[in-house]
Amino acid sequence: MHELRRDPITGRWVVVLRENGMGPGDFEVEKHEIKGGANCPFCPGREGMTPPEIDAHREGGTERDKPGWSTRIIPNKFPALGIEGELNKHGIGLYDMMNGVGAHEVIIETPDHTKQFADFSDHEIEKVVWAYKNRSVDLRGDKRFRYLLIFKNYGRSAGASLEHSHSQLIALPIVPKRVKEELIGSLKYFDYRGRCVFCDMITQEKQESLRIVAENDLFISFCPAVSRFAFESWILPKEHSADFSYIQADSVVALSNILGDTMRKIKKGLKDPSYNLIIHTAPIEERQRDDYHWHIEIMPKLANVAGFEWGSGFYINPISPEDAAKYLRGIKV
Amino acid sequence: MHELRRDPITGRWVVVLRENGMGPGDFEVEKHEIKGGANCPFCPGREGMTPPEIDAHREGGTERDKPGWSTRIIPNKFPALGIEGELNKHGIGLYDMMNGVGAHEVIIETPDHTKQFADFSDHEIEKVVWAYKNRSVDLRGDKRFRYLLIFKNYGRSAGASLEHSHSQLIALPIVPKRVKEELIGSLKYFDYRGRCVFCDMITQEKQESLRIVAENDLFISFCPAVSRFAFESWILPKEHSADFSYIQADSVVALSNILGDTMRKIKKGLKDPSYNLIIHTAPIEERQRDDYHWHIEIMPKLANVAGFEWGSGFYINPISPEDAAKYLRGIKV
Repeated sequence: MHELRRDPITGRWVVVLRENGMGPGDFEVEKHEIKGGANCPFCPGREGMTPPEIDAHREGGTERDKPGWSTRIIPNKFPALGIEGELNKHGIGLYDMMNGVGAHEVIIETPDHTKQFADFSDHEIEKVVWAYKNRSVDLRGDKRFRYLLIFKNYGRSAGASLEHSHSQLIALPIVPKRVKEELIGSLKYFDYRGRCVFCDMITQEKQESLRIVAENDLFISFCPAVSRFAFESWILPKEHSADFSYIQADSVVALSNILGDTMRKIKKGLKDPSYNLIIHTAPIEERQRDDYHWHIEIMPKLANVAGFEWGSGFYINPISPEDAAKYLRGIKV
Repeated sequence: MHELRRDPITGRWVVVLRENGMGPGDFEVEKHEIKGGANCPFCPGREGMTPPEIDAHREGGTERDKPGWSTRIIPNKFPALGIEGELNKHGIGLYDMMNGVGAHEVIIETPDHTKQFADFSDHEIEKVVWAYKNRSVDLRGDKRFRYLLIFKNYGRSAGASLEHSHSQLIALPIVPKRVKEELIGSLKYFDYRGRCVFCDMITQEKQESLRIVAENDLFISFCPAVSRFAFESWILPKEHSADFSYIQADSVVALSNILGDTMRKIKKGLKDPSYNLIIHTAPIEERQRDDYHWHIEIMPKLANVAGFEWGSGFYINPISPEDAAKYLRGIKV
């Protein structure tokens, strides 16, 4: 019989299929054929095709908006939110409106057009994590913004329009619903038990040892017990911390290590699937929250499961997180 | 400047793009090439390939599980939930579990393999709507179930695995999160204003006349002001009613008419896109709710916008609902 499981954070129920479920080899994945960087605006030498850079990690002596960088941050050329102006909040009947003020930046993660995130060395990943942190620290100073959303889409079916490896950062004047739900759910748990639900989750995952994908001194990577998607994987700092942007140097190293490991396992074990990666963190200036815990959610897009949730409004996961984690844990990278 | 809009029901914010937004012709759609019914288990003559039928609309004198039907309802061969057994609710540490007890049925909408929903006559759609209603009435008698989810996926990218036109019904022992959010949001609104938020929405849509796609005496079809997706369309009964399964005969006719119109406009205007259609209705035995209003949500899947929300955890709609509705309104069908 299949099993219904309830997520202790959001209250969401997920069906985990147990009969006629799927094995790791049963999933189709979108093919990633790298078309090449002939007209790629993210390649070195074409810096002029993008808006002027906000920041970059550069070799000494190289110039702004010229080659010589290893990571480069630019404004999105077609931003979802514009950096200039006031919020101008107003209502039209039932609907609350405000101007689309915010920031929408692109983090170009490597000068190498053909190198994907899962192929990066740990040191290359560190540079990306530093870029995430540095941009977060800079943007949280803008009083108009309430939330920083850092995410990475890999592959067309995951929403990526350019193949050159990159992440995005959106600074929002509101807290998005998905985050708010988590905040409300974890506050409820905290009110009731006096403990962080994510800290409790880490304790249970370590006790049960069923769903762990990788672990080091400072971080743990596991398939959550109430995974919505096949091979969904979360990475959490073991020590309680609400706000990603306060991450320290030793944690950047440990995070890059476990993130690299997890992404390599997913690439190798699942034949290089498309995926979304999102950093879930507390709203700006709520870093002291005892009830919330920042983390990374990685959602592989496996073609024959992608549509069901939109269609049904209900999650059905065709492989148990226990089987998914066992498989990923066993992949040597 | 782009615009941020807040949905009065769920509190969700959506960015509506105003500069570099998209026009109706800018979207890519998945191609639907009908491969033919050579091995289709939903075609007449192959009734033996499916589990025995639960119900069917048949010509007089034809036999169960034989040809002669115009709509046919069967259990899903690979159900997400099984009909037998008790719920057996229990906890494992943080996680609440229960057996996957429920029903998962398929409504085969036509014997004609090549005919899609948007090609149906109003009378053919009526038969489908009656099938939805009759199955709902039957299943709401089972005390284990709390919610009936009726939905239709069209096209592979919307999650459909078989091309023969069909819908699905899932009876759940829990209320899914997406519905619960709506219920909580509309109750909050009702507590504050003493009116149904959906009724107020209909009033405002009629006053503003900006987002209406189609209308008849009993129903209205419009692109909601806070559409998450390009060309998202909702159909609501004008008279307050919480539970779809209590729909009356005159409303079935009027609904089939406006639903047919809306689907034909979407097919013709947007080059036959994939889509999801979901009936949002009150939980079983909560039909008296003054604060909730059943409705249908139709979400076209336009390829180059599909991935963004998963990637960002935030909705960005590349065309304003006003432009989308104006375009659909103008499509002659």
